[in-house]
Amino acid sequence: MTRLATFTDAKGPRIGCVLEDGRMLDLAAVPGAPGGDMLSLIEAGPAALAAIAALAADPPVAALLPAGGWTLLAPIPRPRRNVFCVGRNYMDHVAEGDRTRGITQSELPKYPQFFTKAPDCVIAPEDWIPAHAGVTQWLDYEVELAAVIGTEGRDIPRERALEHVFGWTIGNDVTGRDLQRRYGQWFKGKSLDRSCPLGPWIVPAGELDALNTGIRCFVNGEKRQDSHTSKMIFDVREIIHQLSIGFTLKPGDVIITGTPEGVGYAMQPPKTLQPGDVIECEIDGIGRLRNVVRAE
Amino acid sequence: MTRLATFTDAKGPRIGCVLEDGRMLDLAAVPGAPGGDMLSLIEAGPAALAAIAALAADPPVAALLPAGGWTLLAPIPRPRRNVFCVGRNYMDHVAEGDRTRGITQSELPKYPQFFTKAPDCVIAPEDWIPAHAGVTQWLDYEVELAAVIGTEGRDIPRERALEHVFGWTIGNDVTGRDLQRRYGQWFKGKSLDRSCPLGPWIVPAGELDALNTGIRCFVNGEKRQDSHTSKMIFDVREIIHQLSIGFTLKPGDVIITGTPEGVGYAMQPPKTLQPGDVIECEIDGIGRLRNVVRAE
Repeated sequence: MTRLATFTDAKGPRIGCVLEDGRMLDLAAVPGAPGGDMLSLIEAGPAALAAIAALAADPPVAALLPAGGWTLLAPIPRPRRNVFCVGRNYMDHVAEGDRTRGITQSELPKYPQFFTKAPDCVIAPEDWIPAHAGVTQWLDYEVELAAVIGTEGRDIPRERALEHVFGWTIGNDVTGRDLQRRYGQWFKGKSLDRSCPLGPWIVPAGELDALNTGIRCFVNGEKRQDSHTSKMIFDVREIIHQLSIGFTLKPGDVIITGTPEGVGYAMQPPKTLQPGDVIECEIDGIGRLRNVVRAE
Repeated sequence: MTRLATFTDAKGPRIGCVLEDGRMLDLAAVPGAPGGDMLSLIEAGPAALAAIAALAADPPVAALLPAGGWTLLAPIPRPRRNVFCVGRNYMDHVAEGDRTRGITQSELPKYPQFFTKAPDCVIAPEDWIPAHAGVTQWLDYEVELAAVIGTEGRDIPRERALEHVFGWTIGNDVTGRDLQRRYGQWFKGKSLDRSCPLGPWIVPAGELDALNTGIRCFVNGEKRQDSHTSKMIFDVREIIHQLSIGFTLKPGDVIITGTPEGVGYAMQPPKTLQPGDVIECEIDGIGRLRNVVRAE
Protein backbone atom coordinates (compact mmCIF):
# COMPACT_ATOMS: atom_id res chain seq x y z
CA MET A 1 0.00 0.00 0.00
CA THR A 2 1.51 3.33 -1.07
CA ARG A 3 0.77 6.17 1.31
CA LEU A 4 1.41 9.47 -0.44
CA ALA A 5 1.92 12.20 2.11
CA THR A 6 2.73 15.85 2.35
CA PHE A 7 4.96 16.44 5.36
CA THR A 8 7.25 19.03 6.81
CA ASP A 9 10.34 19.30 9.00
CA ALA A 10 13.15 21.84 9.35
CA LYS A 11 13.68 21.66 5.57
CA GLY A 12 10.12 22.73 4.81
CA PRO A 13 7.05 21.10 3.23
CA ARG A 14 7.44 18.38 0.59
CA ILE A 15 6.02 15.03 -0.46
CA GLY A 16 6.93 11.53 0.55
CA CYS A 17 5.65 8.06 1.32
CA VAL A 18 4.89 6.81 4.80
CA LEU A 19 6.22 3.25 5.16
CA GLU A 20 4.56 0.48 7.17
CA ASP A 21 7.21 0.83 9.88
CA GLY A 22 6.47 4.54 10.32
CA ARG A 23 9.50 5.89 8.50
CA MET A 24 9.08 8.52 5.77
CA LEU A 25 10.53 8.08 2.31
CA ASP A 26 11.59 11.64 1.52
CA LEU A 27 11.12 11.90 -2.24
CA ALA A 28 13.14 15.11 -2.38
CA ALA A 29 16.13 13.05 -1.19
CA VAL A 30 15.87 10.55 -4.05
CA PRO A 31 17.78 11.72 -7.13
CA GLY A 32 15.47 11.72 -10.15
CA ALA A 33 12.27 11.03 -8.18
CA PRO A 34 9.16 13.00 -9.02
CA GLY A 35 9.35 16.24 -7.10
CA GLY A 36 7.31 19.30 -6.23
CA ASP A 37 4.15 19.25 -4.19
CA MET A 38 1.16 16.89 -4.28
CA LEU A 39 -0.65 18.95 -6.90
CA SER A 40 2.31 18.79 -9.27
CA LEU A 41 2.62 15.05 -8.63
CA ILE A 42 -1.06 14.59 -9.50
CA GLU A 43 -0.58 16.60 -12.68
CA ALA A 44 2.53 14.62 -13.58
CA GLY A 45 0.30 11.64 -14.37
CA PRO A 46 0.47 7.85 -13.97
CA ALA A 47 4.17 7.38 -14.79
CA ALA A 48 5.23 9.59 -11.87
CA LEU A 49 2.87 7.76 -9.54
CA ALA A 50 4.18 4.38 -10.70
CA ALA A 51 7.76 5.52 -10.13
CA ILE A 52 6.90 6.50 -6.57
CA ALA A 53 5.04 3.26 -5.86
CA ALA A 54 8.12 1.36 -7.01
CA LEU A 55 10.36 3.47 -4.75
CA ALA A 56 8.04 2.95 -1.78
CA ALA A 57 8.15 -0.82 -2.32
CA ASP A 58 11.95 -0.83 -2.25
CA PRO A 59 12.99 2.42 -0.60
CA PRO A 60 16.56 3.73 -0.83
CA VAL A 61 17.84 3.78 2.76
CA ALA A 62 19.55 7.15 2.38
CA ALA A 63 16.18 8.82 1.75
CA LEU A 64 14.40 7.45 4.83
CA LEU A 65 13.51 9.72 7.73
CA PRO A 66 12.88 8.14 11.13
CA ALA A 67 9.34 7.92 12.53
CA GLY A 68 8.63 11.04 14.56
CA GLY A 69 11.18 13.13 12.67
CA TRP A 70 8.57 14.88 10.56
CA THR A 71 5.02 16.23 10.78
CA LEU A 72 2.20 15.35 8.41
CA LEU A 73 0.38 18.13 6.60
CA ALA A 74 -2.90 17.58 4.79
CA PRO A 75 -2.00 15.61 1.64
CA ILE A 76 -3.21 18.63 -0.35
CA PRO A 77 -2.61 21.40 2.17
CA ARG A 78 -4.62 23.96 0.25
CA PRO A 79 -6.79 22.76 -2.63
CA ARG A 80 -6.98 25.20 -5.52
CA ARG A 81 -10.72 25.61 -5.17
CA ASN A 82 -13.84 24.59 -3.23
CA VAL A 83 -13.78 21.26 -1.46
CA PHE A 84 -16.78 19.59 -3.11
CA CYS A 85 -19.18 17.83 -0.76
CA VAL A 86 -22.22 15.58 -0.90
CA GLY A 87 -24.92 15.69 1.77
CA ARG A 88 -27.42 13.02 2.87
CA ASN A 89 -25.63 10.20 1.04
CA TYR A 90 -26.12 7.24 3.42
CA MET A 91 -29.71 6.15 4.01
CA ASP A 92 -29.35 5.67 7.77
CA HIS A 93 -27.84 9.15 8.06
CA VAL A 94 -30.76 10.61 6.09
CA ALA A 95 -33.11 8.83 8.48
CA GLU A 96 -31.35 9.99 11.64
CA GLY A 97 -31.36 13.59 10.38
CA ASP A 98 -35.05 13.36 9.52
CA ARG A 99 -35.83 11.99 13.00
CA THR A 100 -34.38 15.14 14.60
CA ARG A 101 -37.01 17.07 12.63
CA GLY A 102 -39.83 14.69 13.51
CA ILE A 103 -39.88 13.00 10.11
CA THR A 104 -40.33 9.24 10.46
CA GLN A 105 -40.71 8.24 6.80
CA SER A 106 -37.53 9.32 5.00
CA GLU A 107 -37.47 9.92 1.30
CA LEU A 108 -34.48 8.71 -0.65
CA PRO A 109 -32.76 11.68 -2.34
CA LYS A 110 -33.17 11.44 -6.12
CA TYR A 111 -30.00 13.42 -6.86
CA PRO A 112 -26.84 14.04 -4.85
CA GLN A 113 -26.96 17.25 -2.84
CA PHE A 114 -23.78 19.13 -3.66
CA PHE A 115 -22.39 21.93 -1.56
CA THR A 116 -18.87 23.14 -0.94
CA LYS A 117 -16.43 24.26 1.72
CA ALA A 118 -13.76 26.93 1.24
CA PRO A 119 -10.34 25.45 0.43
CA ASP A 120 -8.73 27.29 3.35
CA CYS A 121 -10.81 25.19 5.75
CA VAL A 122 -8.48 22.24 5.16
CA ILE A 123 -6.29 21.35 8.14
CA ALA A 124 -3.72 18.63 8.77
CA PRO A 125 -3.88 15.35 10.68
CA GLU A 126 -3.34 16.03 14.41
CA ASP A 127 -4.11 19.71 13.84
CA TRP A 128 -6.72 21.38 16.06
CA ILE A 129 -10.34 22.17 15.27
CA PRO A 130 -11.67 25.35 16.92
CA ALA A 131 -14.67 24.83 19.19
CA HIS A 132 -16.16 27.99 17.62
CA ALA A 133 -17.90 28.77 20.92
CA GLY A 134 -20.12 31.80 20.47
CA VAL A 135 -20.52 30.95 16.77
CA THR A 136 -22.13 27.53 16.97
CA GLN A 137 -23.81 25.73 19.84
CA TRP A 138 -23.68 22.50 17.93
CA LEU A 139 -20.33 21.51 16.48
CA ASP A 140 -20.41 18.04 14.92
CA TYR A 141 -18.13 15.55 13.12
CA GLU A 142 -18.70 13.63 9.89
CA VAL A 143 -16.25 11.00 8.65
CA GLU A 144 -16.19 10.86 4.85
CA LEU A 145 -14.35 9.09 2.07
CA ALA A 146 -12.51 11.72 0.02
CA ALA A 147 -11.79 11.23 -3.69
CA VAL A 148 -8.91 13.20 -5.19
CA ILE A 149 -9.36 13.88 -8.90
CA GLY A 150 -6.40 13.04 -11.13
CA THR A 151 -7.60 13.69 -14.64
CA GLU A 152 -9.60 16.64 -15.91
CA GLY A 153 -13.05 15.87 -17.23
CA ARG A 154 -16.52 17.17 -17.90
CA ASP A 155 -19.71 15.17 -18.48
CA ILE A 156 -17.85 12.10 -17.26
CA PRO A 157 -19.89 8.91 -17.81
CA ARG A 158 -20.54 6.91 -14.68
CA GLU A 159 -18.70 3.89 -16.05
CA ARG A 160 -15.52 5.88 -16.67
CA ALA A 161 -15.63 7.94 -13.46
CA LEU A 162 -13.02 5.96 -11.54
CA GLU A 163 -10.48 6.58 -14.29
CA HIS A 164 -10.52 10.21 -13.18
CA VAL A 165 -9.61 9.43 -9.57
CA PHE A 166 -6.00 9.88 -8.50
CA GLY A 167 -6.49 8.47 -5.04
CA TRP A 168 -8.38 8.24 -1.79
CA THR A 169 -8.06 9.93 1.55
CA ILE A 170 -10.27 10.76 4.56
CA GLY A 171 -12.16 13.96 5.27
CA ASN A 172 -13.93 15.14 8.42
CA ASP A 173 -16.77 17.44 7.37
CA VAL A 174 -16.92 19.40 10.62
CA THR A 175 -20.29 21.15 10.77
CA GLY A 176 -22.10 23.79 12.82
CA ARG A 177 -25.52 22.09 12.83
CA ASP A 178 -27.40 25.14 14.07
CA LEU A 179 -25.81 27.28 11.35
CA GLN A 180 -26.48 24.63 8.71
CA ARG A 181 -30.20 24.85 9.48
CA ARG A 182 -30.40 28.57 10.18
CA TYR A 183 -28.93 29.67 6.85
CA GLY A 184 -30.97 27.31 4.66
CA GLN A 185 -28.18 26.67 2.20
CA TRP A 186 -25.42 24.71 3.92
CA PHE A 187 -22.28 26.64 3.01
CA LYS A 188 -22.32 28.76 6.16
CA GLY A 189 -22.59 25.87 8.62
CA LYS A 190 -20.13 23.79 6.62
CA SER A 191 -17.37 26.32 6.09
CA LEU A 192 -16.25 27.51 9.49
CA ASP A 193 -12.53 28.19 9.74
CA ARG A 194 -10.45 24.99 10.07
CA SER A 195 -13.52 22.77 9.58
CA CYS A 196 -12.05 20.34 7.06
CA PRO A 197 -9.44 17.96 8.47
CA LEU A 198 -8.00 15.95 5.55
CA GLY A 199 -5.60 13.03 5.48
CA PRO A 200 -3.58 11.35 6.79
CA TRP A 201 -2.28 10.55 3.26
CA ILE A 202 -3.52 9.57 -0.18
CA VAL A 203 -3.75 5.93 -1.25
CA PRO A 204 -3.52 5.60 -5.06
CA ALA A 205 -6.84 4.77 -6.70
CA GLY A 206 -5.62 1.45 -8.05
CA GLU A 207 -4.57 0.16 -4.63
CA LEU A 208 -7.93 0.23 -2.85
CA ASP A 209 -11.52 -0.68 -3.67
CA ALA A 210 -12.80 2.39 -1.87
CA LEU A 211 -16.37 1.66 -2.88
CA ASN A 212 -16.33 -1.40 -0.65
CA THR A 213 -14.58 -0.60 2.58
CA GLY A 214 -15.32 0.06 6.21
CA ILE A 215 -15.72 3.65 7.48
CA ARG A 216 -15.80 4.62 11.15
CA CYS A 217 -15.53 7.58 13.49
CA PHE A 218 -14.47 7.58 17.14
CA VAL A 219 -14.87 10.42 19.64
CA ASN A 220 -12.66 10.04 22.70
CA GLY A 221 -12.35 6.37 21.79
CA GLU A 222 -16.11 5.78 21.63
CA LYS A 223 -17.22 4.38 18.29
CA ARG A 224 -19.85 6.78 16.97
CA GLN A 225 -20.00 5.96 13.27
CA ASP A 226 -19.50 2.45 11.89
CA SER A 227 -20.58 1.78 8.33
CA HIS A 228 -19.38 0.74 4.91
CA THR A 229 -18.87 2.80 1.78
CA SER A 230 -20.99 0.29 -0.16
CA LYS A 231 -23.97 1.80 1.64
CA MET A 232 -23.71 5.13 -0.14
CA ILE A 233 -26.92 6.14 -1.90
CA PHE A 234 -24.84 7.64 -4.73
CA ASP A 235 -21.53 5.85 -5.03
CA VAL A 236 -18.32 7.62 -6.04
CA ARG A 237 -18.88 6.84 -9.72
CA GLU A 238 -22.33 8.43 -9.65
CA ILE A 239 -21.07 11.43 -7.66
CA ILE A 240 -18.30 12.14 -10.15
CA HIS A 241 -20.67 11.67 -13.06
CA GLN A 242 -23.29 14.02 -11.63
CA LEU A 243 -20.89 16.67 -10.37
CA SER A 244 -19.13 16.82 -13.74
CA ILE A 245 -22.32 17.52 -15.70
CA GLY A 246 -21.61 20.87 -17.33
CA PHE A 247 -18.80 21.41 -14.84
CA THR A 248 -15.14 20.59 -15.45
CA LEU A 249 -13.43 18.61 -12.71
CA LYS A 250 -9.71 19.31 -12.43
CA PRO A 251 -6.63 17.49 -11.15
CA GLY A 252 -6.32 18.04 -7.42
CA ASP A 253 -10.02 18.59 -6.81
CA VAL A 254 -11.16 17.02 -3.56
CA ILE A 255 -14.65 15.51 -3.29
CA ILE A 256 -15.91 14.33 0.09
CA THR A 257 -18.67 11.85 -0.43
CA GLY A 258 -21.05 12.03 2.52
CA THR A 259 -21.16 10.63 6.01
CA PRO A 260 -22.91 7.56 7.45
CA GLU A 261 -25.20 7.51 10.49
CA GLY A 262 -23.95 8.19 13.98
CA VAL A 263 -23.34 11.94 14.03
CA GLY A 264 -23.62 13.70 17.36
CA TYR A 265 -26.72 15.78 16.74
CA ALA A 266 -28.83 12.68 16.06
CA MET A 267 -27.77 10.83 19.22
CA GLN A 268 -30.23 10.34 22.12
CA PRO A 269 -29.49 12.60 23.87
CA PRO A 270 -27.56 14.68 21.31
CA LYS A 271 -23.84 15.17 21.89
CA THR A 272 -21.93 18.21 20.68
CA LEU A 273 -18.18 18.44 20.25
CA GLN A 274 -16.39 20.11 23.15
CA PRO A 275 -12.87 21.42 23.70
CA GLY A 276 -10.56 18.50 24.34
CA ASP A 277 -12.59 16.00 22.31
CA VAL A 278 -10.44 13.71 20.17
CA ILE A 279 -11.99 12.75 16.82
CA GLU A 280 -10.59 9.83 14.88
CA CYS A 281 -11.91 9.16 11.39
CA GLU A 282 -11.00 5.79 10.00
CA ILE A 283 -11.37 4.10 6.63
CA ASP A 284 -10.11 0.56 6.10
CA GLY A 285 -7.28 0.51 3.60
CA ILE A 286 -6.44 4.18 4.12
CA GLY A 287 -5.82 4.77 7.81
CA ARG A 288 -6.89 7.07 10.59
CA LEU A 289 -7.26 10.86 10.66
CA ARG A 290 -7.00 12.24 14.20
CA ASN A 291 -7.80 15.78 15.35
CA VAL A 292 -8.54 17.47 18.64
CA VAL A 293 -11.12 20.17 19.36
CA ARG A 294 -9.65 23.16 21.13
CA ALA A 295 -11.04 26.37 22.60
CA GLU A 296 -9.45 29.19 20.65
CA MET B 1 -14.53 57.72 -10.91
CA THR B 2 -11.58 55.32 -10.95
CA ARG B 3 -12.20 52.18 -13.00
CA LEU B 4 -9.68 49.53 -12.03
CA ALA B 5 -9.42 46.97 -14.78
CA THR B 6 -7.53 43.85 -15.70
CA PHE B 7 -6.86 43.85 -19.43
CA THR B 8 -4.72 42.18 -22.01
CA ASP B 9 -3.13 42.87 -25.37
CA ALA B 10 -0.06 41.54 -27.20
CA LYS B 11 2.01 42.25 -24.09
CA GLY B 12 -0.14 40.01 -21.89
CA PRO B 13 -2.50 40.53 -18.96
CA ARG B 14 -1.97 43.42 -16.52
CA ILE B 15 -3.89 46.08 -14.63
CA GLY B 16 -4.89 49.58 -15.61
CA CYS B 17 -7.56 52.24 -15.39
CA VAL B 18 -10.24 52.78 -18.01
CA LEU B 19 -10.64 56.52 -18.59
CA GLU B 20 -13.92 58.29 -19.38
CA ASP B 21 -12.88 58.69 -23.02
CA GLY B 22 -12.29 54.95 -23.40
CA ARG B 23 -8.52 54.98 -23.29
CA MET B 24 -6.64 52.67 -20.93
CA LEU B 25 -4.05 53.93 -18.49
CA ASP B 26 -1.53 51.11 -18.59
CA LEU B 27 -0.11 51.04 -15.08
CA ALA B 28 2.77 48.82 -16.18
CA ALA B 29 3.89 51.72 -18.40
CA VAL B 30 4.06 54.20 -15.51
CA PRO B 31 7.43 54.08 -13.76
CA GLY B 32 6.95 53.53 -10.04
CA ALA B 33 3.21 52.83 -10.28
CA PRO B 34 1.79 49.90 -8.27
CA GLY B 35 2.29 46.81 -10.38
CA GLY B 36 1.36 43.15 -10.49
CA ASP B 37 -2.16 41.85 -10.87
CA MET B 38 -5.40 42.92 -9.22
CA LEU B 39 -4.93 40.59 -6.26
CA SER B 40 -1.50 42.05 -5.49
CA LEU B 41 -2.93 45.56 -5.86
CA ILE B 42 -5.68 44.72 -3.37
CA GLU B 43 -3.11 43.32 -0.97
CA ALA B 44 -0.89 46.38 -1.38
CA GLY B 45 -3.45 48.38 0.60
CA PRO B 46 -4.90 51.90 0.53
CA ALA B 47 -1.70 53.77 -0.39
CA ALA B 48 -1.36 51.87 -3.67
CA LEU B 49 -5.01 52.49 -4.47
CA ALA B 50 -4.66 56.20 -3.73
CA ALA B 51 -1.61 56.41 -5.98
CA ILE B 52 -3.56 54.84 -8.82
CA ALA B 53 -6.58 57.09 -8.31
CA ALA B 54 -4.25 60.10 -8.52
CA LEU B 55 -2.69 58.77 -11.72
CA ALA B 56 -6.12 58.12 -13.25
CA ALA B 57 -7.18 61.69 -12.48
CA ASP B 58 -4.13 63.11 -14.26
CA PRO B 59 -2.85 60.33 -16.49
CA PRO B 60 0.64 60.46 -18.03
CA VAL B 61 0.06 60.55 -21.79
CA ALA B 62 2.87 58.12 -22.56
CA ALA B 63 1.05 55.37 -20.63
CA LEU B 64 -2.30 55.70 -22.43
CA LEU B 65 -3.51 53.02 -24.79
CA PRO B 66 -6.16 53.93 -27.37
CA ALA B 67 -9.72 52.70 -26.99
CA GLY B 68 -10.07 49.37 -28.75
CA GLY B 69 -6.39 48.57 -28.44
CA TRP B 70 -6.90 46.15 -25.53
CA THR B 71 -9.37 43.59 -24.24
CA LEU B 72 -10.90 43.57 -20.79
CA LEU B 73 -10.52 40.50 -18.63
CA ALA B 74 -12.56 39.97 -15.47
CA PRO B 75 -11.12 42.41 -12.90
CA ILE B 76 -10.08 39.35 -10.88
CA PRO B 77 -9.72 36.78 -13.65
CA ARG B 78 -9.54 33.84 -11.27
CA PRO B 79 -10.42 34.43 -7.61
CA ARG B 80 -8.36 32.36 -5.19
CA ARG B 81 -11.41 30.57 -3.85
CA ASN B 82 -15.19 30.17 -4.06
CA VAL B 83 -17.18 33.11 -5.34
CA PHE B 84 -19.46 33.71 -2.35
CA CYS B 85 -23.14 34.23 -3.19
CA VAL B 86 -26.37 35.19 -1.48
CA GLY B 87 -29.74 33.86 -2.62
CA ARG B 88 -33.24 35.30 -2.20
CA ASN B 89 -32.01 38.73 -1.13
CA TYR B 90 -34.57 41.06 -2.74
CA MET B 91 -38.17 40.70 -1.53
CA ASP B 92 -39.74 40.92 -4.98
CA HIS B 93 -37.38 38.23 -6.24
CA VAL B 94 -38.31 35.99 -3.31
CA ALA B 95 -41.96 36.55 -4.20
CA GLU B 96 -41.54 35.82 -7.92
CA GLY B 97 -39.63 32.62 -7.12
CA ASP B 98 -42.33 31.54 -4.66
CA ARG B 99 -45.04 32.20 -7.26
CA THR B 100 -43.42 29.67 -9.63
CA ARG B 101 -43.94 27.10 -6.86
CA GLY B 102 -47.53 28.16 -6.13
CA ILE B 103 -46.65 30.03 -2.94
CA THR B 104 -48.56 33.31 -2.72
CA GLN B 105 -47.57 34.45 0.79
CA SER B 106 -43.78 34.78 0.84
CA GLU B 107 -41.84 34.60 4.05
CA LEU B 108 -38.96 37.00 4.51
CA PRO B 109 -35.70 35.04 4.96
CA LYS B 110 -34.40 35.47 8.51
CA TYR B 111 -30.77 34.86 7.54
CA PRO B 112 -28.89 35.28 4.27
CA GLN B 113 -28.72 32.09 2.24
CA PHE B 114 -25.07 31.59 1.35
CA PHE B 115 -23.87 29.33 -1.40
CA THR B 116 -20.84 29.44 -3.67
CA LYS B 117 -19.67 29.06 -7.24
CA ALA B 118 -16.30 27.64 -8.27
CA PRO B 119 -13.69 30.34 -8.97
CA ASP B 120 -13.04 28.96 -12.46
CA CYS B 121 -16.59 29.92 -13.45
CA VAL B 122 -15.53 33.56 -13.71
CA ILE B 123 -15.44 34.92 -17.26
CA ALA B 124 -14.64 38.33 -18.73
CA PRO B 125 -16.85 41.11 -20.06
CA GLU B 126 -17.85 40.34 -23.67
CA ASP B 127 -16.87 36.71 -23.15
CA TRP B 128 -19.38 33.99 -24.09
CA ILE B 129 -21.64 32.00 -21.82
CA PRO B 130 -22.29 28.41 -22.96
CA ALA B 131 -25.95 27.58 -23.57
CA HIS B 132 -25.28 24.24 -21.78
CA ALA B 133 -27.89 22.57 -23.98
CA GLY B 134 -28.36 19.00 -22.87
CA VAL B 135 -27.33 19.96 -19.34
CA THR B 136 -30.00 22.53 -18.46
CA GLN B 137 -33.33 23.31 -20.09
CA TRP B 138 -33.55 26.51 -18.12
CA LEU B 139 -30.55 28.80 -18.29
CA ASP B 140 -31.18 32.11 -16.54
CA TYR B 141 -29.44 35.41 -15.76
CA GLU B 142 -29.14 37.30 -12.46
CA VAL B 143 -27.55 40.76 -12.22
CA GLU B 144 -25.83 41.25 -8.87
CA LEU B 145 -23.74 43.82 -7.07
CA ALA B 146 -20.33 42.28 -6.34
CA ALA B 147 -18.26 43.34 -3.34
CA VAL B 148 -14.51 42.72 -3.49
CA ILE B 149 -12.93 42.26 -0.07
CA GLY B 150 -9.84 44.34 0.64
CA THR B 151 -8.97 43.62 4.24
CA GLU B 152 -8.94 40.27 5.99
CA GLY B 153 -11.40 39.84 8.80
CA ARG B 154 -13.44 37.39 10.84
CA ASP B 155 -16.49 38.12 13.00
CA ILE B 156 -16.68 41.54 11.37
CA PRO B 157 -19.25 43.78 13.07
CA ARG B 158 -21.93 45.11 10.77
CA GLU B 159 -20.94 48.70 11.44
CA ARG B 160 -17.35 48.10 10.35
CA ALA B 161 -18.13 45.87 7.37
CA LEU B 162 -17.63 48.48 4.67
CA GLU B 163 -14.08 49.10 5.89
CA HIS B 164 -13.29 45.62 4.60
CA VAL B 165 -14.48 46.35 1.05
CA PHE B 166 -11.87 47.17 -1.58
CA GLY B 167 -14.36 48.00 -4.29
CA TRP B 168 -17.47 47.18 -6.29
CA THR B 169 -18.10 45.42 -9.54
CA ILE B 170 -20.93 43.56 -11.28
CA GLY B 171 -21.62 39.82 -11.35
CA ASN B 172 -24.04 37.80 -13.45
CA ASP B 173 -25.03 34.73 -11.45
CA VAL B 174 -25.90 32.56 -14.45
CA THR B 175 -28.06 29.68 -13.21
CA GLY B 176 -29.47 26.39 -14.46
CA ARG B 177 -32.87 26.69 -12.75
CA ASP B 178 -33.84 23.06 -13.27
CA LEU B 179 -30.52 21.92 -11.79
CA GLN B 180 -30.84 24.36 -8.89
CA ARG B 181 -34.13 22.72 -7.92
CA ARG B 182 -33.23 19.14 -8.78
CA TYR B 183 -30.14 18.98 -6.61
CA GLY B 184 -31.64 20.61 -3.52
CA GLN B 185 -28.51 22.46 -2.54
CA TRP B 186 -27.77 25.13 -5.13
CA PHE B 187 -24.11 24.58 -5.94
CA LYS B 188 -24.79 22.30 -8.91
CA GLY B 189 -27.18 24.67 -10.70
CA LYS B 190 -25.06 27.69 -9.87
CA SER B 191 -21.64 26.43 -10.88
CA LEU B 192 -21.84 25.41 -14.51
CA ASP B 193 -18.69 26.14 -16.48
CA ARG B 194 -18.35 29.84 -17.42
CA SER B 195 -21.42 30.79 -15.38
CA CYS B 196 -19.99 33.82 -13.59
CA PRO B 197 -19.39 36.87 -15.81
CA LEU B 198 -17.64 39.50 -13.68
CA GLY B 199 -16.73 43.11 -14.44
CA PRO B 200 -16.31 45.30 -16.36
CA TRP B 201 -13.97 46.82 -13.76
CA ILE B 202 -13.76 47.60 -10.04
CA VAL B 203 -14.81 50.98 -8.65
CA PRO B 204 -13.01 51.72 -5.35
CA ALA B 205 -15.26 51.40 -2.30
CA GLY B 206 -14.90 55.06 -1.35
CA GLU B 207 -16.06 56.33 -4.75
CA LEU B 208 -19.58 54.84 -4.80
CA ASP B 209 -22.45 54.46 -2.35
CA ALA B 210 -23.16 50.96 -3.66
CA LEU B 211 -25.86 50.41 -1.06
CA ASN B 212 -27.98 53.04 -2.78
CA THR B 213 -27.73 52.66 -6.51
CA GLY B 214 -29.75 51.42 -9.48
CA ILE B 215 -29.31 47.85 -10.73
CA ARG B 216 -30.69 46.57 -14.05
CA CYS B 217 -30.43 43.73 -16.52
CA PHE B 218 -31.24 43.77 -20.22
CA VAL B 219 -31.64 40.78 -22.52
CA ASN B 220 -31.40 41.67 -26.21
CA GLY B 221 -32.09 45.26 -25.21
CA GLU B 222 -35.28 44.43 -23.29
CA LYS B 223 -35.16 45.62 -19.70
CA ARG B 224 -35.83 42.56 -17.56
CA GLN B 225 -34.56 43.60 -14.13
CA ASP B 226 -34.82 47.15 -12.81
CA SER B 227 -34.34 47.71 -9.11
CA HIS B 228 -32.21 49.43 -6.52
CA THR B 229 -29.59 48.01 -4.18
CA SER B 230 -31.34 49.72 -1.26
CA LYS B 231 -34.04 47.05 -1.65
CA MET B 232 -31.79 44.22 -0.50
CA ILE B 233 -33.21 42.28 2.42
CA PHE B 234 -29.69 41.92 3.87
CA ASP B 235 -27.52 44.83 2.78
CA VAL B 236 -23.82 44.47 2.05
CA ARG B 237 -22.88 45.32 5.65
CA GLU B 238 -25.12 42.58 7.00
CA ILE B 239 -23.90 40.09 4.38
CA ILE B 240 -20.25 40.68 5.26
CA HIS B 241 -21.05 40.51 8.96
CA GLN B 242 -22.93 37.23 8.67
CA LEU B 243 -20.58 35.56 6.20
CA SER B 244 -17.58 36.38 8.38
CA ILE B 245 -19.01 34.74 11.50
CA GLY B 246 -16.45 32.06 12.33
CA PHE B 247 -15.12 32.38 8.78
CA THR B 248 -12.17 34.53 7.73
CA LEU B 249 -12.76 36.74 4.71
CA LYS B 250 -9.60 37.43 2.71
CA PRO B 251 -8.36 40.13 0.36
CA GLY B 252 -9.60 39.41 -3.14
CA ASP B 253 -12.68 37.47 -2.05
CA VAL B 254 -15.68 38.20 -4.28
CA ILE B 255 -19.18 38.28 -2.78
CA ILE B 256 -22.18 38.60 -5.09
CA THR B 257 -25.09 39.91 -3.15
CA GLY B 258 -28.30 38.60 -4.69
CA THR B 259 -30.49 39.53 -7.62
CA PRO B 260 -33.69 41.59 -7.81
CA GLU B 261 -36.96 40.51 -9.46
CA GLY B 262 -37.27 40.00 -13.21
CA VAL B 263 -35.41 36.76 -13.85
CA GLY B 264 -36.51 34.73 -16.84
CA TYR B 265 -37.96 31.73 -15.07
CA ALA B 266 -40.51 33.85 -13.23
CA MET B 267 -41.78 35.66 -16.35
CA GLN B 268 -45.25 34.95 -17.75
CA PRO B 269 -44.61 32.97 -19.86
CA PRO B 270 -41.13 31.99 -18.65
CA LYS B 271 -38.19 32.86 -20.88
CA THR B 272 -34.97 30.88 -20.97
CA LEU B 273 -31.65 32.09 -22.31
CA GLN B 274 -30.90 30.93 -25.84
CA PRO B 275 -27.80 30.97 -28.04
CA GLY B 276 -27.31 34.47 -29.41
CA ASP B 277 -28.95 36.21 -26.45
CA VAL B 278 -27.09 39.33 -25.31
CA ILE B 279 -27.17 39.95 -21.55
CA GLU B 280 -26.24 43.36 -20.20
CA CYS B 281 -25.96 43.79 -16.45
CA GLU B 282 -25.85 47.40 -15.31
CA ILE B 283 -25.22 49.12 -11.99
CA ASP B 284 -25.29 52.90 -11.77
CA GLY B 285 -21.87 54.23 -10.84
CA ILE B 286 -20.08 51.12 -12.01
CA GLY B 287 -21.02 50.44 -15.62
CA ARG B 288 -22.29 47.68 -17.81
CA LEU B 289 -21.24 44.02 -18.07
CA ARG B 290 -22.13 42.51 -21.46
CA ASN B 291 -21.99 38.84 -22.43
CA VAL B 292 -23.46 36.69 -25.17
CA VAL B 293 -24.88 33.17 -24.89
CA ARG B 294 -23.38 30.79 -27.40
CA ALA B 295 -23.99 27.19 -28.37
CA GLU B 296 -20.78 25.33 -27.64
